[in-house]
Amino acid sequence: MKVGGVPYRAIFTAGDGVDVRVIDQTLLPHRFETIRLETAADAARAIRDMVVRGAPLIGATAAYGVALAMRADPSDASLQQSLALLASTRPTAVNLRWALDAAGTLLRPLPPGARADAAYDFAARLCEEDVSRNRGIGEHGLAIFQEIARSKGSGASRPINVMTHCNAGWLATVDWGTATAPVYLAHDEGVRIHVWVRETRPRFQGAGLTAWELGQHGVPHTLVSDSAAGHLLSRGKVDLVIVGTDRTTAAGDVANKVGTYPLALAARDNAVPFYVAAPSPSIDWTIEDGANIPIEERDPEEITRVWGVDEDGVERRVRVTPEGTRAANYAFDVTPRRLVTGLVTERGVCAAERGALGKLFGLS
Amino acid sequence: MKVGGVPYRAIFTAGDGVDVRVIDQTLLPHRFETIRLETAADAARAIRDMVVRGAPLIGATAAYGVALAMRADPSDASLQQSLALLASTRPTAVNLRWALDAAGTLLRPLPPGARADAAYDFAARLCEEDVSRNRGIGEHGLAIFQEIARSKGSGASRPINVMTHCNAGWLATVDWGTATAPVYLAHDEGVRIHVWVRETRPRFQGAGLTAWELGQHGVPHTLVSDSAAGHLLSRGKVDLVIVGTDRTTAAGDVANKVGTYPLALAARDNAVPFYVAAPSPSIDWTIEDGANIPIEERDPEEITRVWGVDEDGVERRVRVTPEGTRAANYAFDVTPRRLVTGLVTERGVCAAERGALGKLFGLS
Repeated sequence: MKVGGVPYRAIFTAGDGVDVRVIDQTLLPHRFETIRLETAADAARAIRDMVVRGAPLIGATAAYGVALAMRADPSDASLQQSLALLASTRPTAVNLRWALDAAGTLLRPLPPGARADAAYDFAARLCEEDVSRNRGIGEHGLAIFQEIARSKGSGASRPINVMTHCNAGWLATVDWGTATAPVYLAHDEGVRIHVWVRETRPRFQGAGLTAWELGQHGVPHTLVSDSAAGHLLSRGKVDLVIVGTDRTTAAGDVANKVGTYPLALAARDNAVPFYVAAPSPSIDWTIEDGANIPIEERDPEEITRVWGVDEDGVERRVRVTPEGTRAANYAFDVTPRRLVTGLVTERGVCAAERGALGKLFGLS
Repeated sequence: MKVGGVPYRAIFTAGDGVDVRVIDQTLLPHRFETIRLETAADAARAIRDMVVRGAPLIGATAAYGVALAMRADPSDASLQQSLALLASTRPTAVNLRWALDAAGTLLRPLPPGARADAAYDFAARLCEEDVSRNRGIGEHGLAIFQEIARSKGSGASRPINVMTHCNAGWLATVDWGTATAPVYLAHDEGVRIHVWVRETRPRFQGAGLTAWELGQHGVPHTLVSDSAAGHLLSRGKVDLVIVGTDRTTAAGDVANKVGTYPLALAARDNAVPFYVAAPSPSIDWTIEDGANIPIEERDPEEITRVWGVDEDGVERRVRVTPEGTRAANYAFDVTPRRLVTGLVTERGVCAAERGALGKLFGLS
């Protein structure tokens, strides 16, 4: 999508196709800078320090990390070492593990001299697959948006009002994003759309990342506190909700950024459709019940301290609580399938239940 | 309640009973300072600048403002002028209007020489009534807490886990608070209690005020993001929710700080009791349906900018969004009566419906 009018991807090779670059997301929304990854260690650091985040983008960065290692030293030892290094960065990220396993399986049988090219090809293919999956989600999602708009009389006179949570945007993927894919597609095709962006405490991914990327691409949006969703839904200001997913169970339960579950409840209470953009790699076929998903607890300082820029543009971290206040920081919650209107996958839209999901992916 | 081991009220007279003091709440939680109100203009400024906030405390401050005016000049002109000045500070505050009307009705027939004493007496009585009402809410609420604890086997082995929103604490009243009254009473009587404090974006009244006052009084508490409530409720970590109310309709709908309605939904979805501490002055007998209550929109800068202290203790305001991001700031929402387990009033606990409420207050 666009940044200052120029099309970007969240990870890309420049010049000779060897030089790997990513957007430094730790600086957003206050500074836009791309940084060059020269080694597998650079890639590992980018993942660990959240220079890149979002499951698809983490997977793509890891794949390029292996390619950078193979360019420097295509030996078996180097391959093994880079896989281990990259795997250690975010141990619970499903896409990371999958990308590294696939890269290892592909590269081990090859003669060392062929590994660098193969690894670059693999990483590029991984990126193209992500883009194509998200584009597919965009098309299936847009059809839903338009159907809802028609039924509500939105369109020329009034935009489609979409609400989203956190950042399931192109910054979390290679391009398009998941929940944002239908939004960008609508916008690019001239369909009037307006996005209610929830700020997404504690890390403000909505306020800092989603608002930034929508703004850069020119999509009309309004930022609100996470708590305002109930009010907006109850007063008819939202036509549909669409969010991303960190992990979707085989039965259709959705683990996503904390706050998704209360948002789904508020949507249901007001008969507003609640969709989840679920690319197939987010589906965990080994789990049925979302209640069994362990929920990560992160550093309480994310709750007690807020990062931003002051009036002079200087970045600062400020404490919003009394000194020493005890805080707990649950990063995700689980939305039960009964609250999900539908899962928007690259293969189409289906009900959040095992049969429908299995049928879509030929696993019944 | 206590600050640094010393009992305080949010407004009090010192020394000769003439000198009026309030806690400067714009400095909390980072600095604790009381300031002296010497004139009606001081009182008006304290209300307008939110040095004092919370409906009961605003009413009490206005009453003392009239007393300060009468001390300086007890003439009819002075009385009229001070009433008008104080009424203009927060035009929608119900308690403010009520306190000023009552003060005017009381003072106008009196000879000027008797007005200052009568105005001080009136203000002091208003404060005592507030304290006594909140103490009543505390007693009725504590009985509920203990019943829930008994049914859940809480007690010696495990504290009662209460969740609250915003600041319906003693800082919003003269003392005790409304939603916090049963919490303080429990704590003072040795009942083990733990409070989940929601930070309450955008103004962080939970993180800044509720966490501060509970901490100063020694009540165990944990701060969480507003979005974490759903997760905590779904995993059985909350025994009951109790919140305050800005306005309760005659039929039991509750207008309160934005985020209350989604919290009530999450409580209901997990069969956790949801109580509203509703002192009688919060009940608007002229309105039935909460959907008719207009919702105040506040300055969007409260969403885009956060105030706190940096590592050196310097107060700073930082922007958390891209420059120029459009934001909307809805301050309240309406929780429909069907989600309210009970209203805790100074006269007892009743169902959130017209008949029960009318019966409790002899208005059937």
